[in-house]
Amino acid sequence: MHAIDETHSPALVSWLASANQAGADFPLQNLPHGVFRRQASGEAWRGGVAIGDQVLDMAAAHAAGLFTGEAAVAAGHAGAPALNGLMALGPSAWQALRLALSRGLREGATDQARWRACLVPLAEIEMTVPARIGDYTDMYASIHHAGNIGKLFRPDSPLTPNFKWLPIGYHGRVSSIGVSGQSFPRPRGQILPPGAAAPVFSECKRLDYELELGIWIGQGNAQGEPVPLADVERHLFGMCLLNDWSARDIQAWEYQPLGPFLAKSFATTVSPWIVTMAALAPYRGQWIRPEGDPQPMPYLDDPAIRERGAFDITIESWLESATMRAAGQNAARLSHSSFRHSYWTVGQMVAHHTVGGCNLQPGDLIGTGTQSGPGEGEAAALIEQSVGGKQPVSLGNGETRSFLEDGDTVILRAWCERPGFARIGFGDCRGTVLPAR
Amino acid sequence: MHAIDETHSPALVSWLASANQAGADFPLQNLPHGVFRRQASGEAWRGGVAIGDQVLDMAAAHAAGLFTGEAAVAAGHAGAPALNGLMALGPSAWQALRLALSRGLREGATDQARWRACLVPLAEIEMTVPARIGDYTDMYASIHHAGNIGKLFRPDSPLTPNFKWLPIGYHGRVSSIGVSGQSFPRPRGQILPPGAAAPVFSECKRLDYELELGIWIGQGNAQGEPVPLADVERHLFGMCLLNDWSARDIQAWEYQPLGPFLAKSFATTVSPWIVTMAALAPYRGQWIRPEGDPQPMPYLDDPAIRERGAFDITIESWLESATMRAAGQNAARLSHSSFRHSYWTVGQMVAHHTVGGCNLQPGDLIGTGTQSGPGEGEAAALIEQSVGGKQPVSLGNGETRSFLEDGDTVILRAWCERPGFARIGFGDCRGTVLPAR
Repeated sequence: MHAIDETHSPALVSWLASANQAGADFPLQNLPHGVFRRQASGEAWRGGVAIGDQVLDMAAAHAAGLFTGEAAVAAGHAGAPALNGLMALGPSAWQALRLALSRGLREGATDQARWRACLVPLAEIEMTVPARIGDYTDMYASIHHAGNIGKLFRPDSPLTPNFKWLPIGYHGRVSSIGVSGQSFPRPRGQILPPGAAAPVFSECKRLDYELELGIWIGQGNAQGEPVPLADVERHLFGMCLLNDWSARDIQAWEYQPLGPFLAKSFATTVSPWIVTMAALAPYRGQWIRPEGDPQPMPYLDDPAIRERGAFDITIESWLESATMRAAGQNAARLSHSSFRHSYWTVGQMVAHHTVGGCNLQPGDLIGTGTQSGPGEGEAAALIEQSVGGKQPVSLGNGETRSFLEDGDTVILRAWCERPGFARIGFGDCRGTVLPAR
Repeated sequence: MHAIDETHSPALVSWLASANQAGADFPLQNLPHGVFRRQASGEAWRGGVAIGDQVLDMAAAHAAGLFTGEAAVAAGHAGAPALNGLMALGPSAWQALRLALSRGLREGATDQARWRACLVPLAEIEMTVPARIGDYTDMYASIHHAGNIGKLFRPDSPLTPNFKWLPIGYHGRVSSIGVSGQSFPRPRGQILPPGAAAPVFSECKRLDYELELGIWIGQGNAQGEPVPLADVERHLFGMCLLNDWSARDIQAWEYQPLGPFLAKSFATTVSPWIVTMAALAPYRGQWIRPEGDPQPMPYLDDPAIRERGAFDITIESWLESATMRAAGQNAARLSHSSFRHSYWTVGQMVAHHTVGGCNLQPGDLIGTGTQSGPGEGEAAALIEQSVGGKQPVSLGNGETRSFLEDGDTVILRAWCERPGFARIGFGDCRGTVLPAR
């Protein structure tokens, strides 16, 4: 597991002033990876690292010879148009690069001019999905979400009997994953109207978002060789935000017996920056199994994982309606919670995913499932917030929402903070619903 | 839809004698695409076309200048280490290449020596998955399979209410898809023993195969733009055999509420040759909706599709046990049926898959779901044949099977024949169960 080291010191200050501003998502302690190019430039996509209000062009920095040794190998891959090669290298190389970046960007570093020459303002770039995703899996790891939504879909047995025994997961669609800024037409599909005997073909009328975190897989495992929980860390590269857009009415009709399909496959949005597991190290804490719940099977339990299995990542969802945009109003916050409430940890998800022999590959993406928390205001999807559409949510400007309307932009945000450490942020994950075609 | 043309004439004879043998899988009328290299050669993978007992090395044939015009463009892609580029070209290029191959390989063709120089014996090659699969979807299109297995999993409602309204599908795992010859350790996982209150961790005790066809997607569609049924053909490149290995006991415990996950993701095996939609044209026939069943929604219905929607592809599954191998006995046939019994057609699967806006990409793979037929001996998985394990199947040599045992090799076979046309075959799809690690 990543140790706390000099790169996490809250005392670190960058020679780039914007990195030192209170509340900035990308201080020196963060250093997230992404893939970018200048807007409307026709430039090639290449990897970069966010710092303050800039991105360090890793292709340029590597070409300029700013790195040596293991860090240089990692920097070469970190400048590629997809980060799969970097993800495949493993923790030692990742850590060497993080240290080199931290030292080169901090106050007092020599060679500032050469580093500065590789910076591009965030305001001038566009970004893309940061890796070639071989497979995308979505889990269902929040007991609060599963309970809330289970009540609506299956009033008799909200939590299926397996929930407390294994991290439920299913395979998702890769081709329709887009990066923050994605927009998509409202899907059409088959829907069974309440009380009807036969379905109708219709626009989705219960379009929803789901606030999740995404886990980017680092090193892979061979087919047939499960990843033990104690060995999970090298398989984890970092995390992002993920919006698992969901057509609830399409889902309700189609999902038996084989699970969600068209209800999810029309679009999935990720935030473009990958916050590394190294950057997240200070914000890990004890994973607690609620009293009375079954003891996890041995392959899902490990003392070290219990000790640092949970991640205290604050997560929020916001809605900006077309009306708000036109009136210059701020977006309305829909939820505020923390990923620390997840019933299953990231490590348990990976250990379970591979226990039957399934092989993960660098750049695979795992969604955590909607991360609703236990309290008021912590439900992370409209279907929970509006209790299945029966209690519309106020947006504070006179508008209400049971489900998403055309023109709605959903914004997901996440950050970590802890006394004695810096605040690091994930950057926004935005997506917009267009009218059905 | 592909027309019947000179390439389908049963009178065609090749200058390669092995292509003309009765019962051969790869006569001149077939010309399936795959990716190969000489065994243990360290050679690069490249595309080839099967003919008789040989493969035409398409990289070599293209380099030798055997093709001109549109066929040459297609031939360049057909020699690549993955056939995604060929798949993206569309029917006109595919057809130009098919015609050029047919003319070059038929009796009386000039330049035979130059063509012959590009042949490699099938006995000397190994093959790989023929495309980079972006996404793999598995459908559930046989009403006979759904009914048989539904009785076992859900005695009260074997067919879910949506079955006759839409082709049910779910997303599958790409990373563990292998080519014929694949072997894999028996998976372990959580299983709920009959009557038990809590699951145990165990080797899978109800390991099964599923006989499916695989559909290789040709041209893609843009996100948000559904493929109308009338426009499906350019999105279909060809078909193969697919074994959707299934751990029934793991599946029974894990699959609610989000569908199969580890029960399927440990391995999926495809046959290496892609039989093109052009080659399959003569064996298409009327798709018949059973009397009294609901009229398909307009996006799932089209007169042309009804007329030629069904594919009469004979499909068989065979089992070769370790005992049989040791004793030099022949494999035992487990099932014999035809894909023409599928409740939903290939075209309907694609139209439905995209109707909500999901984008398909060249090289995507769609499994048809287990294709069980209506009659005796037509069930295409052991769980159906053994009625949930209660009536073990005789293998004819004194052995019986309720589910697969270690060392079992399952062999899937398929071919098409029709009076007035040639017989074309798919080649074997073999996979072997190894003991759990």
